[in-house]
Amino acid sequence: MSTLNNTIVIAEPNKQEYFVERTFYAPRELVFKAFTTPELLVQWFLPKELNMQIEIMDCKAGGSYKHFHTHPNGMKFGFRGVYHDVIVPQKISMTSEFEGLPQKMDAVLETITFHELKNGNRNSTKVVIHTVCPSVQFRDKMLSSGFETTIGKTHQLLDNLLAIIQ
Amino acid sequence: MSTLNNTIVIAEPNKQEYFVERTFYAPRELVFKAFTTPELLVQWFLPKELNMQIEIMDCKAGGSYKHFHTHPNGMKFGFRGVYHDVIVPQKISMTSEFEGLPQKMDAVLETITFHELKNGNRNSTKVVIHTVCPSVQFRDKMLSSGFETTIGKTHQLLDNLLAIIQ
Repeated sequence: MSTLNNTIVIAEPNKQEYFVERTFYAPRELVFKAFTTPELLVQWFLPKELNMQIEIMDCKAGGSYKHFHTHPNGMKFGFRGVYHDVIVPQKISMTSEFEGLPQKMDAVLETITFHELKNGNRNSTKVVIHTVCPSVQFRDKMLSSGFETTIGKTHQLLDNLLAIIQ
Repeated sequence: MSTLNNTIVIAEPNKQEYFVERTFYAPRELVFKAFTTPELLVQWFLPKELNMQIEIMDCKAGGSYKHFHTHPNGMKFGFRGVYHDVIVPQKISMTSEFEGLPQKMDAVLETITFHELKNGNRNSTKVVIHTVCPSVQFRDKMLSSGFETTIGKTHQLLDNLLAIIQ
């Protein structure tokens, strides 16, 4: 377990899953909207130096998504998948496949849940991302490549965005 | 690990995945077709005493499926999900959610691969179904409810069907 600016990554040894948890100081509806609205997602999802383009984002059960990021050095990668469940403003369940390597990758199953908390007089929302991978090795490789730093940084961007739009 | 009429179920303790393996004595294209064609699927998927109805089966990446089974005693249950990948005739990757209990269930990630084998002078195909569950408990409950017997029986039906249509 490790913490980066309040983002917690929980990955027990020898499991093929991991959890990412973070509390955002904004109402659940707004946090959910920031995860599911293309115009908002591009403002926080993945580090600032990358240009994000959303090709498809049909955020409903049975819908698909596909987006990619371009680094100033020309490197391009992205994610695509299908939505199994989209329950506003509580839960998103979807597949996710990383695209950008020469070889085709397997998909993971990702479930994002949004929990209402009361924190003093401000609404706050705990987001839990549960990712299940095809194998322990797959998960460990995924988490070893700067994942925690990246996700912590993007959550800071989301923090900033939520402060502006609420 | 256990075997039922040549269907092998591999479920290591404390893992959230399981594998189902079986070799069918038919060419890969035909076996793939039996998994992906509604008119064929209804002839072998789940025991004979159940009536199977396919509501949706849009078997391509980004497509959805939904089918249900009715027992003569009126009990009704089914599965629904989305296809992440459909690579003819090699691989299907999809989500799967069991429907029929009062409570909503979580989805699993299921990947079916079709491997060409040469077995004497007949083409044969090894099918491997890899299912990744949200938790170990979820998997263990799934496997404890007559799963192995059921899947062995359905594979016998598929054997019969393949012998007829090839």
